[in-house]
This record gives sequence, C-alpha cells and structure tokens, in this order.
Amino acid sequence: MTADLLDMLKEQDLPYLKDWLNSKQPYEIANELLHADAAGMALVFRLLDKGKALAVFEELDPSDQQEILAGLRDRAFRELVEGMDPDDRARLIGETPAKVARRVLAGLSPHERQMTAALLGYPEGSAGRAMTPEVVALHRSLTAAEALNVVRTKGANAETVYTLPVVDDGRRLVGITSLRDLVTAPTDRRVNDIATMDFVSARATDEAEDAARLMRDANLLDLPIVDSEDRLLGLLTIDDAVEVLEEAETEDAYRQSGSEPLAGSYLLAGIWMLATRRVPWLMLLFVAAILTINVLDHFEENLAEVTALALFIPMITGSGGNTGAQSATSVVRALALAEVRVRDVPRVLWTEARVGALLGLALGLVGIVIGLVFADLQLALVIAISLLAVCTWAAIVGGCMPLFAKKLGIDPAVVSAPMVATLVDATGLIIYFMTARTILGL
Amino acid sequence: MTADLLDMLKEQDLPYLKDWLNSKQPYEIANELLHADAAGMALVFRLLDKGKALAVFEELDPSDQQEILAGLRDRAFRELVEGMDPDDRARLIGETPAKVARRVLAGLSPHERQMTAALLGYPEGSAGRAMTPEVVALHRSLTAAEALNVVRTKGANAETVYTLPVVDDGRRLVGITSLRDLVTAPTDRRVNDIATMDFVSARATDEAEDAARLMRDANLLDLPIVDSEDRLLGLLTIDDAVEVLEEAETEDAYRQSGSEPLAGSYLLAGIWMLATRRVPWLMLLFVAAILTINVLDHFEENLAEVTALALFIPMITGSGGNTGAQSATSVVRALALAEVRVRDVPRVLWTEARVGALLGLALGLVGIVIGLVFADLQLALVIAISLLAVCTWAAIVGGCMPLFAKKLGIDPAVVSAPMVATLVDATGLIIYFMTARTILGL
Repeated sequence: MTADLLDMLKEQDLPYLKDWLNSKQPYEIANELLHADAAGMALVFRLLDKGKALAVFEELDPSDQQEILAGLRDRAFRELVEGMDPDDRARLIGETPAKVARRVLAGLSPHERQMTAALLGYPEGSAGRAMTPEVVALHRSLTAAEALNVVRTKGANAETVYTLPVVDDGRRLVGITSLRDLVTAPTDRRVNDIATMDFVSARATDEAEDAARLMRDANLLDLPIVDSEDRLLGLLTIDDAVEVLEEAETEDAYRQSGSEPLAGSYLLAGIWMLATRRVPWLMLLFVAAILTINVLDHFEENLAEVTALALFIPMITGSGGNTGAQSATSVVRALALAEVRVRDVPRVLWTEARVGALLGLALGLVGIVIGLVFADLQLALVIAISLLAVCTWAAIVGGCMPLFAKKLGIDPAVVSAPMVATLVDATGLIIYFMTARTILGL
Repeated sequence: MTADLLDMLKEQDLPYLKDWLNSKQPYEIANELLHADAAGMALVFRLLDKGKALAVFEELDPSDQQEILAGLRDRAFRELVEGMDPDDRARLIGETPAKVARRVLAGLSPHERQMTAALLGYPEGSAGRAMTPEVVALHRSLTAAEALNVVRTKGANAETVYTLPVVDDGRRLVGITSLRDLVTAPTDRRVNDIATMDFVSARATDEAEDAARLMRDANLLDLPIVDSEDRLLGLLTIDDAVEVLEEAETEDAYRQSGSEPLAGSYLLAGIWMLATRRVPWLMLLFVAAILTINVLDHFEENLAEVTALALFIPMITGSGGNTGAQSATSVVRALALAEVRVRDVPRVLWTEARVGALLGLALGLVGIVIGLVFADLQLALVIAISLLAVCTWAAIVGGCMPLFAKKLGIDPAVVSAPMVATLVDATGLIIYFMTARTILGL
C-alpha cells in the first residue's frame, strides 16, 4: 500500500513499476495517473499491455485523455482510439480541439468512424451522445432459443446483453426483455410473449442528465434510446448514466459555490483555467455588492453618530447569508431529486418563513447577550430584532429563488450560497439600520 | 400530462385515479406521493394492486415508508414488508423507531426474518447493511451447462443473476463470472475456467459509500461482499450503490451550506426538523462571528475617524468569503472524486495562492474604480490592496481547510461556504484596517 506511482516514476524503477501495473486494476492506475505529469503518463502507457492500456484510458476524463494522446506515437495512438467504445470516443472528440478530433477520426477504421460520426450528430449533453449504438436487438417473432443464439453470435461487440430491446420489422421498439428472462423462459416461447411492453425509453435528443435520472428513479440497468419515430438507436448503460449523474452533481456543487465546473481533474487544471472558471460569478457578485455601499452611504450619518453600529455589520449580514444559503441548498437539492416542483412556491415560502423565524429567534436570543457584552441594552434589542427579521427574509429569498430560476429556465444551482448572501446583504443592512433608527431614535 | 395526483385526491375522483395509477410507472407514482398527505397516501395504497403497491413502496425513503405503514391495516402491512427485498427492509428497520421496527419484524415469515436479522447485524452505513444476501453462487467445479441450470432454478429469488460469484467448498469467494460469459461459453467448460480470478470485492464491515465509489470507479454492475475470511455474504447491486452515492451527494450538498441533511424528503420534513438540522452550524458560525466584533472594536477609533471605511466592509468580507467558498468547493469535490489526496497540501496551497492572487487582482482593479466613485484615491488604493491580499488568503484557507479536515478524520464537506466565509471575515477585516492605517496614516 505504500508503493506510489509518483515515487516509482521519479526513481525510474521500471521493473518494479511493471509489477505494480500488473497487480493493479485499471481504475486504480487511472486514479494514480491524475497525480503524474505528462512524461510520467507517457511512460506508463508504454509499459502497459494493449488491453490494459485501453481499460485505463477509458477511465480518464476527455481532457486528461487528450494529454495522453498528445504523448503517443501514431501506432499506439490508433490502437487506443480504435479500441474505445463509440460513446466514449464521441465524448473525447466532442470535448477536444478540432486538430486532435481530426487526428482521432483519421485513425479509425471505416466502421468505427461511421458509428462515431452518427453519435456526434446528436447535440452535446444529449442522450444520443452518451448511448452505445452497439446493442443486440431481438425481432419480436424469434423464439427464446433463437434469441439466445442471436445473443451468442452478435453479443461479442455489444456493450451489454442484459437488456435486450425487442423490435418489429421497421426496427421500431415494441418491448424490452432481458437475458435473465430469456434464460429462464421455455425455449420455444416467443420473444414477443416474454418481453414486457410496458417500458420506459428516451429520445436521442433528450438531455442525457434527464435520461440518467430516469434510470436512477426507475432502477434500470439500461435505457433504450429511440428516434422521433420510436426506432431503436441504442442503449444508455448504467455505468455511463452514473458518470452523467456524477458530472451533473459536480456541476451543481461548483455552481452552488458560485463557480463554473472544471474540464478534467483539479490537479491537472492549471491556475489559468481555475481562475477563469471562478472569475465571472465572483465579479458579478462583487459588482452586486455595490448595493451594500449605497445602503451604508445612505445611513452614513447614523454610523457617524453611533460608531458601535458598525461593529455588528459582519455578524448581521453573515447570519442572513448563512440562513439564506441553507434554504437555497435544501430547495436546490429537493429540485434535483424531484421532491419539489416550481408550483410549490407557496408551500416553500410558508415553510421557509417559519423556519427562518425560528432560526432568527434562536440567534436573536444569543444576540441580546452579545449586544449587552459589546454595547448596551438598546443596541442589544436592535441586534435581536434585526436578526429575527433578516433570518426570516433570508430564508424566504433563499428558498424561493431556486424555484424562480427553474421557472425562468435557469439552472437552479446557480442560486448559490454566495449569490444569496450578496443579495441578502443589502436588504439585511436596510433592516438593521431602520430598526436602529426606530429603537435608538436617530 | 396535466393530470395531478393531488387534484384527483382532492376531488376524490376514484375511477379516474385508478386509471391514472394503472398507466403510471411505480417511480412516477412514488414521486407524486411525496406531495400528498397521509390520508391521500393511504388511499393510493388501498387502490394499488399488491405487486405495484410493493414496487411503489420500495421507491420511497424509509421515513416516508414509515408514514405509509402507519396508515395500513395489519394484512396489507404484512404483505408489504414480507415482499420487500431484505436490504430495503433492513434499511427501513434501521431508520424507524423501535416500535415500528418490532411490528415489521413480527409480521415476517421466519425465513425473511432471519435474513433481515443477519443484515441488521452489520453497522449502519456498512456495505453489509446495503447488500442483498439472495445471490446465486456457483461452485467452481460446475460446468457452464450445470451452472445455467442453477441460475434457472435458484435465480427466481435473487435480486440479480448477472454477476455470479464463484465459490469453493468452504463458500470462500474465489472468482467472478457473469451470465453473459456463461451463456457464450461452451456448455462443458468448467466455471472455474470461465471465471476471472482477478476481481474486486469489499468486506461487509466496509463503508457502503466506499464500496459504491469503488463500483463507480471500476464500472461494476455488482460488488461481491465477503466476511473477514473471504466467505461470500452477498452482492451490492448497482441500483443500491447509486442510491448510496446519491445520499452521500445529498449529505455533501447540505454540509457544504452549513446544515445537516434531512431524513426523508423536503416537503414532508416539517419546520421543526428543518430548523433543528440547520441551527447547530448556524449558531456555531454566529458565535464565531464574535471575532469580527472584536476586530472592529479594536479598530473603532479608525472607524470613528474615517466613517467611509465602514462603507466597504460588506464588500471586502463578502469577496473574501466568496473566493474562499470557491476554493473549498473545488477541493471538497476533488477529494470526493479521489482526484486530490491529503498529502497534496503543498500543491493545493501553491495553486490556490496563485489563483487567489489572480482573482484578487481582477477584483482590485474594479475596486479602484468603485473606491474613486464612493470615496477618494487613497481609499481606492486601500480597497484594491485589501482585495488582493484578502482573496489570496481566502483561497489558501478555503483550499487547505478541507484537506486538514480529512487529515483529522472529519468529513471535508463540513468545510462549507459559510464556514470559510466566517473564518475569513475576521482576518479580512484585520487586513483591511491594517492597510488603511498604513496608507491613510491613521
């Protein structure tokens, strides 16, 4: 367990490295590669045998694959891209510069090139891009025994033979059966009678993310993908669906902190890519923060009169931001899991208002003590009342904004903790100073 | 598509409701149920036929299942719990009050009760709890034809027959084969020669989350679960693994906004549960914010002298918080995907320091303009320099804290946007006022 690819690469201990590569699963090697540099990656790929090199390669993200391809000679390059699954290859081509894409396509046999081109015809992020076109389709008139023979002869190239789509003469999808049902059915039974006709499918132009969520909800191993006339095009397999969901989760996680997701892995990203992914939202929020300057500018006289008011500004705005972020996260997550819908706005509003008030009450009680320690009773009251109002308001804003975003066709996850915090900051300050004016009689 | 379960329940339109239930997939009905109340749920379950009721029931979270069980009479109750998969049942019992758990166990046949009790012997959150014990294990000496017969006769009760563990006389796991390989192999070939001996497995006491991630990384449909002597106990299936991962993602998403995850779905949670999940972190951060009061108290003289300094406090602290949150999210996510390890602290620190400086530079340039508009050149310089320093510092803190948390055995996801923001607030204010003192000569 103490052996480490990086150390072995540094010490150029090739025999030991070869042993290590033989003893590890492809996904373990791929994970280790993410920490190596370009020269190290190239060395590893020269030492791996053909089959394992392909398996390791397919575990990597397209942007990391690109780095490896750049370091390979023509023959090794061609062997890798020819061996890839068509959907993985389409993904690689879709996410690399045109020059690399052309080199990949040029290295392919006509059959593989044609399959890849077909997948590339579907928009990025669609179910069509992510599906495998290599499926074993069964004609509805076959018997179970005949169908099993089809699986035996045609199954070798297919990514899966567990979900078996049933089609009619026009290759229209009419049912679904499984290898399990085929194996246990009487040999002379017709596929048409074994198959279930009550199945779910998706269009090739549907979002891959929606198709993957459907698979998760309906507990499917594979989802048939059809065209607009219900003709079978391929299958979305569960391992690809898991990957699609993982990417969606990563995107949500990044958006929720006000940044755009990276292409590829963190350590290989480089500071320029990291900065450019983060700067748009950061700048937007920065400019939005001008509102807070305006508000404080407006109340500058009060601030000059009671300097102690300034002491509690970060605490008030911070609590509002935190409360709002909690609400936003609950609702964004509930939307992602389809637990909440846009029309639930009134229920969410009413729920969050009461939760926010409860939280504001709790903070307000502690706030009185803090106010008494650092100032006087009057200011303590200002703090407590402000916290109650700010938390209630922040919870409502945080809870409802993701629903409005969804309604407007915007990804609800962009309603991030930083965005809610920034929006609530200015209104929180207004609440704070208006309360102060009333109670302190300014 | 305009039909809605809630409306049908309100109007008590039973014949229409029945049609609707017949036309929908179990997962669709389950999704709709999350919006209904207890009476509505009970009504739906009375209308569903036995098999579909079970399928719908298994789609729900344990806390939602509990609500439904509470509304059922003894016979319907028993039919539901007897029909559940042992792993789903163990999960239900593990997450319900003792009284409900006893009622569930009492309703079971001896065989099902024994299987459930065995799963409950493993700790909550372990792979043993989440696995299915009903697997088809093949003895290594069988031929392919004999093995297929085993699948046909014993497969009916198993959750899956696609992954087929191969065992020796002592039921020790020695290999893995698949229905696919069995179907395509010559009928007289030994299972021992068909199976791969180079496989991955997990212990029953391992974390279910780790096992699920392993399945995702290695693209497995099922993962064999063994005891400490490598004896086969069951399989973790991909649909359960996807559920485990989804729960882990939800937990991370909640923690990242400074709150604990809910049990069950959002709309059914109730304001008390929502408030109690959020208040611990919120209160902790609130108390931590006392630091900011101390800092401002320390610099109160400067504030009284130059009131304009107060105007930019929310903008400076907000930008620091946002920058830190972005870094924290990148690293938390990279940790979850195993792209970064604890020992990468120096690399992460160096990366984030440079990214933070770049971002601080961008904000600082805009900050000069803002400073000139609302104050004067001197203050504009204070703002720009503070932003550069605060963003660099915040990025370092946000990037390294998740790694330190992991090192200390704490879930890195608790290093949330609100937590980083709160921690950076006080230091950001110190930077701001020290810069102001130097440049303004206070």
